[in-house]
Amino acid sequence: MNACLLKNFGTTVRRLREARNWSQEQLAEHADLNRSYVGEIERGQVVASILTVEKLARAYGLSGAVLLEHCEKSRTPQPAKGIDLAAIAC
Amino acid sequence: MNACLLKNFGTTVRRLREARNWSQEQLAEHADLNRSYVGEIERGQVVASILTVEKLARAYGLSGAVLLEHCEKSRTPQPAKGIDLAAIAC
Repeated sequence: MNACLLKNFGTTVRRLREARNWSQEQLAEHADLNRSYVGEIERGQVVASILTVEKLARAYGLSGAVLLEHCEKSRTPQPAKGIDLAAIAC
Repeated sequence: MNACLLKNFGTTVRRLREARNWSQEQLAEHADLNRSYVGEIERGQVVASILTVEKLARAYGLSGAVLLEHCEKSRTPQPAKGIDLAAIAC
């Protein structure tokens, strides 16, 4: 579960960044974080704290809760009709 | 901002625990966390990671996003009519 959560969080952070056409450097600047740390987060290599979640969320104009919600949505697959994909969700 | 976030997160965790009539030991057991760590979280003395947020949320039957949402609501006062309390929100 943990690796899945970290990977999804990283993917969510990257997607939101790319949707804004920001580089990692630009996101780092907006969020007041180190550029290499942003890279590690996006790759799911570090465990972000709630303070980091808050900083990233604010950079995107979101709340921390909404950022986590994006993350949770990204790991909830839409099952195809008649097929239960829950067992392979993560 | 940081101390405020940590304090509010701790208060939220404590309120949800008390609403269930759980001791810190019981919450720790449900969340698979150390009892003393739960105490430090509730007092805003440590910075929880997103993995800890997830563990606490699951113990309460919530998602991490909903737990943070509870936290964010607790620090957003409802202004009295005609009085702007934003300046003393935190």
